[in-house]
Parts: sequence; C-alpha cells; structure tokens
Amino acid sequence: MKKFAVILAGCGVFDGSEIHEATLTLLAIKKAGHDYQVFAPDIPQYHVINHLKGKVTGEQRNVLLESARIARRQAKPLSQFIASEYDAMVFPGGFGAAKNLCDYAFKGAGCTVNAEVEKAVKDMHAAGKPIGAMCIAPVILARIFRGSEVTVGAAGNDAANIEKMDARHVVTTHGEVVVDKSHKLYTTPCYMLDATIVQIAQGTENLINAMLTSM
Amino acid sequence: MKKFAVILAGCGVFDGSEIHEATLTLLAIKKAGHDYQVFAPDIPQYHVINHLKGKVTGEQRNVLLESARIARRQAKPLSQFIASEYDAMVFPGGFGAAKNLCDYAFKGAGCTVNAEVEKAVKDMHAAGKPIGAMCIAPVILARIFRGSEVTVGAAGNDAANIEKMDARHVVTTHGEVVVDKSHKLYTTPCYMLDATIVQIAQGTENLINAMLTSM
Repeated sequence: MKKFAVILAGCGVFDGSEIHEATLTLLAIKKAGHDYQVFAPDIPQYHVINHLKGKVTGEQRNVLLESARIARRQAKPLSQFIASEYDAMVFPGGFGAAKNLCDYAFKGAGCTVNAEVEKAVKDMHAAGKPIGAMCIAPVILARIFRGSEVTVGAAGNDAANIEKMDARHVVTTHGEVVVDKSHKLYTTPCYMLDATIVQIAQGTENLINAMLTSM
Repeated sequence: MKKFAVILAGCGVFDGSEIHEATLTLLAIKKAGHDYQVFAPDIPQYHVINHLKGKVTGEQRNVLLESARIARRQAKPLSQFIASEYDAMVFPGGFGAAKNLCDYAFKGAGCTVNAEVEKAVKDMHAAGKPIGAMCIAPVILARIFRGSEVTVGAAGNDAANIEKMDARHVVTTHGEVVVDKSHKLYTTPCYMLDATIVQIAQGTENLINAMLTSM
C-alpha cells in the first residue's frame, strides 16, 4: 500500500482548496487501494471570500483548521511532514493553492512559494518521489522547478506565466495528465477548464493512477 | 433529465454538511446523467466547530454561504425552493443536518424541524416525489412522517430515537438503501457507520440510483 501526502489550502474554491477536487483526490487514492494523510500549513488564510457573492469578508480563518473540514479532522500541520514516510505528494487546486500556498494569485510569475510547501516539495523531489498537482496548483511546481513541464489546461495568462517562470506549459483538455518524467511531476487541469464534477472525478483518478505507475 | 434539489446545511462534518457525502451526492447525480440545484436555509449556523480539536469556536457563520463553498457558488436560499421545478430532493448528512436543519443534535426525539425545511419536504411529498437522506439526515424525515421507515445504520441511540418519533428504524450496513415505498423515502447510513470514502461513494450512488428507479 502506497501512502500519499495530500496538501490542502483551506476549504472552498475561492479562498481555499477546491472541495470537489480535494474530495475526489482522496476517493481516487482509496479506490486504487492506497492511503493518504492530509497536510496543510498552520497559517492564516490570505482572506475569506463570501462564496455566494464572490466578495472578501472581514473574517479570519486558518488554513489548517479549514482543511481539517475536508479531512474529517485527520489533518496535520505541514511543518510535521517527513518525506521518508510518504510515497507521493499531491496538490488539489482551488484559489487557495495560489493564495495560501504561494502568492501566485497576486504576483503572477514573480510569485514566492510558502517556505514549508517549498521544503516539502523539494524533500519529495530529492527522494525521487512523484508529485502531482491539479487546477492552478501546477504553478507551485513551475515556480520551484525551472525547466519542468506542467499543464493548467488551455493557453492563456496562466500558461504564459508558467513559461515566464522558465517552465514549459502543455495545453490539455479534460482528464489529460502531463507527465514530466525527469522531475516526476504529474499535472491535470480539472476546474481550470469549464468542467463538470464527472470530469473532475475522471481527472483526479487519471492523475493518481498515472502517479501510481511510477511508484 | 431529472432535476434534484440537494439540501445542504453548511460545510464541514461537525457543524455543517459532511463534505464527502455532499460532493459524492452531486457526483452521483451527474454521473447518472441528471442535474442538481443546491439549496440551504439562509440562517446562522447553530455554532462553528474547530474541525481539528472538535471544540466550539466563537465564530458566526451562515448556513447558505458555507453551503455555497460545496456548490461552487451555485447555491440558492431554501426560501426560493419551488417543488414543481424539481423531480427529487436529497439531504446529505453531517452534524449540520441535525444542528441547522433541525435541532435533533440537542433535543433528540423531541426535536423540531426548521420551518423552511419542513415546508420543502412536505411540498415534495404532496407532489408524490421521492426524498432521499443519508447519515443522520433521516431523522428529519422520521420527525416529519409518522409511520415512515428509515435507516441511520446500526441499532443504538439514534435508531431508538427514530422509533420514539413513531417511525420505524431498519438496521443496515454500508451502501444499503432502505426504501419506504408508501412515503417515497430513500435512506442510507454513509458515515453513520465507520466507513471509508469509497463506501460513501457507493452509498450515495446506490441512494441516487434507487431514487431514480421511482421517477
């Protein structure tokens, strides 16, 4: 049985992890007969968005505590992550990946990755283990690995920003997985495209299964 | 194409809708080729629980706004629900169903159902349309329909409370659906049992598919 570290960024598409992508990632791992542990940085969210109106509220929430909603309490602070205990790492998407795990949503190609996230990714990479990301989360991998190859779906601003970060963007459609064999990176667009929840289930399953073939 | 009204109660197992059950209900509906609209009452949550520690926080959150996280913005206030526009209604579980949609979590068999929830359920019932519920949510149906037959999984306090409400409890295991043909009620235990997310996917799919056979 392989153990996946699933890195969440809160709970909700506009300020945290995209809930369908996160839930269906957990399902895909268990469906394939493997196990997971959810991690998230124990930091304040960048902000809280009213998910009906799309506007910033005055609230303050914590990334780890909100992520624990998706994990049904079983979430650990990312500071406790030890690469040798896991076989793979995966990042569901949602704006939280670009607001709480890095500041891509505000700084684009000039973004900085959260130090704990960067260390966890680099530790997994140094151990030769696969790292997956979906939706907007591949920008984290593009920022960390120069010369890497990832997808966020269609051509456009985000694809251009990935190229500016000295990574290569590959255009994909629903459910397609881009494999960067040299960096062991696996990425798929999910809700970066105008997708149905059925396509998200297929995308997460394809991503996890592609990662498993390398393990 | 059939249209399901999915009634949510917030976002998170301890104070809102159980996220896996809610997400996998939406998936099951779309996978079967049908469509949904999420509704939730526009009311304050009973309370907010820290999902890592299991303790009440001082925060205030709104049931509709938190439900909109799971719905990716597409949530409507339950006051706008019109039974003639839908073919079926379904309640995912989580403590929110027993804290925000009724007060079962605090009053047990003596509980009262939120007036908008009760009206929506009765309108669907009067129109002869099927109503589904999972996890702890079947207590809402037991409270509304004397003589109905539902499940919350194993025998125990909740099963005894259902009998006290003059409904009948049927013991079930993972993925089993209890069908009350006379009231057109469909219930399945999901996380009322110690279940994996794979069993939740199976339970929600079995529930939606059983409802569809009646439509």
